[in-house]
Amino acid sequence: MRSLNQLLWLQRLLVKLRWFYFVKFWGMDIHPSAVMSLSVRLDKTYPKGVHIGPDSYLAFDVAVLAHDMPRGLYCDTHIGARCFIGARCIILPGVSIGDGSIIGSGSVVTRDIPPASIAAGNPARVIRRNIETSRLGRLRSAGRDRGNEETVLPELELAAREAGGLP
Amino acid sequence: MRSLNQLLWLQRLLVKLRWFYFVKFWGMDIHPSAVMSLSVRLDKTYPKGVHIGPDSYLAFDVAVLAHDMPRGLYCDTHIGARCFIGARCIILPGVSIGDGSIIGSGSVVTRDIPPASIAAGNPARVIRRNIETSRLGRLRSAGRDRGNEETVLPELELAAREAGGLP
Amino acid sequence: MRSLNQLLWLQRLLVKLRWFYFVKFWGMDIHPSAVMSLSVRLDKTYPKGVHIGPDSYLAFDVAVLAHDMPRGLYCDTHIGARCFIGARCIILPGVSIGDGSIIGSGSVVTRDIPPASIAAGNPARVIRRNIETSRLGRLRSAGRDRGNEETVLPELELAAREAGGLP
Repeated sequence: MRSLNQLLWLQRLLVKLRWFYFVKFWGMDIHPSAVMSLSVRLDKTYPKGVHIGPDSYLAFDVAVLAHDMPRGLYCDTHIGARCFIGARCIILPGVSIGDGSIIGSGSVVTRDIPPASIAAGNPARVIRRNIETSRLGRLRSAGRDRGNEETVLPELELAAREAGGLP
Repeated sequence: MRSLNQLLWLQRLLVKLRWFYFVKFWGMDIHPSAVMSLSVRLDKTYPKGVHIGPDSYLAFDVAVLAHDMPRGLYCDTHIGARCFIGARCIILPGVSIGDGSIIGSGSVVTRDIPPASIAAGNPARVIRRNIETSRLGRLRSAGRDRGNEETVLPELELAAREAGGLP
Repeated sequence: MRSLNQLLWLQRLLVKLRWFYFVKFWGMDIHPSAVMSLSVRLDKTYPKGVHIGPDSYLAFDVAVLAHDMPRGLYCDTHIGARCFIGARCIILPGVSIGDGSIIGSGSVVTRDIPPASIAAGNPARVIRRNIETSRLGRLRSAGRDRGNEETVLPELELAAREAGGLP
């Protein structure tokens, strides 16, 4: 683990380069403070339609779509600020996810999700409202109800490792 | 973009080679006019059970299964003509999807889908009937209700780029 | 096919090396008789929370999670003995799947699944109880109700090929 941590600067460089590639080359609208796994798929058919807000987090294999091929539509898909998008979620074209919302792993988001909500399922439904998230979509209550303190990893290591696409 | 378009002949060659590999080497039944993303997974355990009709389109990460390991079954899975199978769909073994049907992204298709239907969800349910599709599962009404003409990409570029597995 | 089978020793070696890497390097609790596709994702953020029992089988693209980032939780996720986890399933952190259970392809398992059950869907629900499985989660009744004997592949080839991550 210790030896892996020595490579964190390399990972951070790769993540930065990828952000540059998405924003400057493809023209996507991604806030520099957003963090996403290397395996995330952002719509390259209509890259201008991809909008990701500050301090949001996209876990591994998330797909953000901005075009609907059978209907021939090209739409804007918005992910707000301080959102957490769980592993393998699919955000359908034209959907807006409000600030501070959490989408459970494996969800398919077909409609707009209001701010400060937890949604999950296929199709995704709101299962909780009025939550409060901080950076990377963490619940403000996070960690308080945790029993086993030993299992808490340093946040930097966690975020950096996840940003590298490790599951 | 312009420079990427100069590589379209290479992409077309790769797609053709892959079709040859699936059909001649593995013995799958795929019509040459079907288009699929490079990330599609077709069942190689029972490749003869995979049937894909003309002018159908399989988006990225679609999985077409033709065997059920816990039951020890090997079955024929059919996708008809002019179908659109959305990103990350799983078509379970033995399922038949009728001609001209559209399956929404992220669906798990557990039962037969009648022709000219739209189905979505996990498990997939029919949500609309009597649609009309043309080549690659496009709705005949496609693009008519589109507001922003600027966002329409040339169809050739679109199809070729998607066939290359880009999301 | 015949020529591919000559490479089975190489595949078996790779599978063994990977088991060693997961268990000795990452500290996961995986029984040596469990078989999993090369594309399986096991949680490397909290690897000690991953528990996979003897004679279980994980198909391609299965994800086993052991941490919940928004809640800051690190939990133990258990897959019992003789289970079959279908392709692209997501097992959420803290879930326990009982011995001899089968999870359908594309399911998202959000709650504990009792032993000897079949569960499927997003979220996964139990759809059958009191089943009996043998090695790799095969139903004891497997193959008995099969019509076409020609389509039965040798079990060794099947298992080895699937373990290699081929769909």
